[in-house]
Amino acid sequence: MSNHNRLELVLPDWIDDEIDFSRRYIDDASRMGLAIGLARRNVELDSGGPFGAAIFGADGDLIAVGVNRVVPQNCSVAHAEMMAFMSAQARLGRYRLNEDGSRYLLATSAQPCSMCYGASFWAGIDALVIGARAEDVMELSDFDEGPLPADWEGELGKRGIEVRRDVLRDQAREVFELYRNRAGASY
Amino acid sequence: MSNHNRLELVLPDWIDDEIDFSRRYIDDASRMGLAIGLARRNVELDSGGPFGAAIFGADGDLIAVGVNRVVPQNCSVAHAEMMAFMSAQARLGRYRLNEDGSRYLLATSAQPCSMCYGASFWAGIDALVIGARAEDVMELSDFDEGPLPADWEGELGKRGIEVRRDVLRDQAREVFELYRNRAGASY
Repeated sequence: MSNHNRLELVLPDWIDDEIDFSRRYIDDASRMGLAIGLARRNVELDSGGPFGAAIFGADGDLIAVGVNRVVPQNCSVAHAEMMAFMSAQARLGRYRLNEDGSRYLLATSAQPCSMCYGASFWAGIDALVIGARAEDVMELSDFDEGPLPADWEGELGKRGIEVRRDVLRDQAREVFELYRNRAGASY
Repeated sequence: MSNHNRLELVLPDWIDDEIDFSRRYIDDASRMGLAIGLARRNVELDSGGPFGAAIFGADGDLIAVGVNRVVPQNCSVAHAEMMAFMSAQARLGRYRLNEDGSRYLLATSAQPCSMCYGASFWAGIDALVIGARAEDVMELSDFDEGPLPADWEGELGKRGIEVRRDVLRDQAREVFELYRNRAGASY
């Protein structure tokens, strides 16, 4: 018996076909539109759970995207935000994105769960833009968001991570309705 | 430009040479001894940060191990606990370890940071055995543990995850002293 020393996490092939990596996303609405679009396509194409995320540079350049891959990859870590962090870090070749002194932003279709929340502190982002609220996720699905510090938003602020919430919230909620209607199993 | 769709995380080769996967670890001390040994070897062999973790089945059988790989893998997610969760899930072929109705335990050489804490809720473990305290880590190194819910231990208990702390705490602390003496950069 040996350990599983080599782990591979793979995002769906449709990402490279459908996402325009040369486009600039200059405001929160366009960034969130991309994150929600990823979540929606992930449901429609049955490639994972109803969550999408994307990381942008200071000029609105798209660095990397992620979608939920928990079930297809048999990996509880493979949430959309985590996939986006890891992909962005692989692309830039460093474990803390903003170590170059530039600013990075994560847009995520739903409020990060306890794991992705914690990961946000180490990834090297300067802003976190959120679509659906945790209460939306729990109202519209069986997904659990996990426990957070009482002032979770303030804790991010203290460490230099700005939070903007409710961006395209209604559109973000619709993805959970779509997912529910397709009767996906929650995990 | 395309996304980095294929992510690879690799544990060090010495794990298969040094760890006996046929051995049973029947008590918390032997399980923690393994986790601390992994952390120590990771420092000595310069393959990552001073953290080790291991996952055991109900009979003390070793399912998977992890060490911190943040710097060598350019990945802020590659903490010891996360590597152990992902490796165990890859080996058992499911995203929630205890979905088979059996019990799983994570032993970690130091209290999980905010990310690994959050990840513990989704991985499918029933017990969390901790060596060094967060205050030890912060006293002996520059590593940041991140914010947790005020009653972090109670939140785990509420969701059926038992916590046992201070197991071989002094021995766990020594790894951070070793790391400091070798003047590793904290991240």
